[in-house]
Amino acid sequence: MSLLDRPVTDRYESRVGRDRRVVERAEPVLWGGTDAAGPLSPAQLASFERDGYVVLDGWIDTSTVDTCLREIERLAMTPEIRTDERSVLEPDSGALRSLFEVHRTDSAFADVVADERLAGVARQILDDDVYVHQSRINLKPALEGKAFPWHSDFETWHVEDGMPEMRAVSCSIALTDNTEWNGPLLLIPGSHRRYVSFGGHTPDENHRTSLRRQEHGSPDLDTLESLYAEGGIATFAGGAGSVAFFDCNVMHGSPNNISPLSRTNAFFVYNAMSNAIGEPFGTDAPRPSHIAERDPAALPRR
Amino acid sequence: MSLLDRPVTDRYESRVGRDRRVVERAEPVLWGGTDAAGPLSPAQLASFERDGYVVLDGWIDTSTVDTCLREIERLAMTPEIRTDERSVLEPDSGALRSLFEVHRTDSAFADVVADERLAGVARQILDDDVYVHQSRINLKPALEGKAFPWHSDFETWHVEDGMPEMRAVSCSIALTDNTEWNGPLLLIPGSHRRYVSFGGHTPDENHRTSLRRQEHGSPDLDTLESLYAEGGIATFAGGAGSVAFFDCNVMHGSPNNISPLSRTNAFFVYNAMSNAIGEPFGTDAPRPSHIAERDPAALPRR
Repeated sequence: MSLLDRPVTDRYESRVGRDRRVVERAEPVLWGGTDAAGPLSPAQLASFERDGYVVLDGWIDTSTVDTCLREIERLAMTPEIRTDERSVLEPDSGALRSLFEVHRTDSAFADVVADERLAGVARQILDDDVYVHQSRINLKPALEGKAFPWHSDFETWHVEDGMPEMRAVSCSIALTDNTEWNGPLLLIPGSHRRYVSFGGHTPDENHRTSLRRQEHGSPDLDTLESLYAEGGIATFAGGAGSVAFFDCNVMHGSPNNISPLSRTNAFFVYNAMSNAIGEPFGTDAPRPSHIAERDPAALPRR
Repeated sequence: MSLLDRPVTDRYESRVGRDRRVVERAEPVLWGGTDAAGPLSPAQLASFERDGYVVLDGWIDTSTVDTCLREIERLAMTPEIRTDERSVLEPDSGALRSLFEVHRTDSAFADVVADERLAGVARQILDDDVYVHQSRINLKPALEGKAFPWHSDFETWHVEDGMPEMRAVSCSIALTDNTEWNGPLLLIPGSHRRYVSFGGHTPDENHRTSLRRQEHGSPDLDTLESLYAEGGIATFAGGAGSVAFFDCNVMHGSPNNISPLSRTNAFFVYNAMSNAIGEPFGTDAPRPSHIAERDPAALPRR
């Protein structure tokens, strides 16, 4: 079925040729409420519900962080990795920028992604069994790490991957110190309650041209000013081992890293088993499975 | 006299084909000591001496800030300004990035640059009459304002303008809020006591190719890591009207601005009358006078 034949029944339609608009979110943020059992306290859950994210200082132990960093160092020095389709290189320097699907290709990250401190929080927020929709390492090297423009992950996952509902949660794990000046994650508190759609259409193979990403799925200045006026901007700064959990629809981005301190983070997306992806809502061809899991298997509860 | 004929007597030689090196600063930071009379307290002067900069919250009144912003708005909408040699445009969008020599071309900025709260501080630090070596407006527009790589201003002014000694001070005036996330000035405290020279040579007309600036006068990662290990990194964040005075040799830079809040600052450089510029120490042709004043006139004491 081509896009033109589809009925207009998608609340979150975007990039299907209609005007940009902002709609209210339909789904809850906490699917099990603030009393759901799990690693987070009711106060932390309430903070997540209000702001769309929660920052947990020192959440992951030093030994686990060190294991991850050693593993990344090994991977970055493996020649085949650079030419693998799971790798994204910096446009100018050719340095490794992102490495996808590490939870499948690397046993150390497979352990971390299933850790109760992470997967358990996802189950607590989403009130369901969860699987890994996407995993990746984001390296923002000293002096040359590039920015990520503002976006809602859900908009992309809905349009390009076919994720039906806002029932997914991301976490960013600081493996090196994340400071206000080394290209940290910036979030607009409260923006998870608005869904920003876009006009135009998604070009074929959009995921291969990340440089042009800002044209597809990043809001214009008016929209950002409006979200900012309501919520301001918050910075995820924290030492290695700190974790930010953030809702799939919160508006976020990050500036470049001109500092001498590299910022290395692991990024995991947990999706509710009941929210597995189907046909994309705004493109004809789904993205490859190393970017969007199409064979969901629930992570074991421990 | 060509560069090759010059004797090696320049302590701060750089970009003259010799190896990169780091030397100790020879000059004092406070030429009149911490008891010099003027707008700054002895504690503020001591802080400037130790760190190489001092931040003054709410230093300039709202009325003056508003006058400056109105004037910038008017200038940015004047078509001739964009094609004037004093204007620097953003490489991608063509938006106005910098506008030089505003203290000469605009009476509002002529008043501000001579204000005792600014020129008086420069006299207090430099213990001499002062003139304006350079003035400019730096606009870092929302979403698209580009980064400035790390550099010491003095290195450029010595090599390209012929400034003899470290007896100049800059000030950056926040005309809109400067936050940790809208591309703020970053400084390495204590770095003003080291002078980092560079190998290679300066290309002709270097000031016209600011995009390539990072190749000429910006330190490598090893040097920055070493300066950072000693001093860390400080952010100049403050509301409109806040001012940062910083030594001509402190290492500084600023990241891009992905936020919806434009960062607009005025930047003035005061040089001691006794330190007027001569023949450049590392190039054959001096930069134009709108970038480096060659006809110094002391600002009147008020």
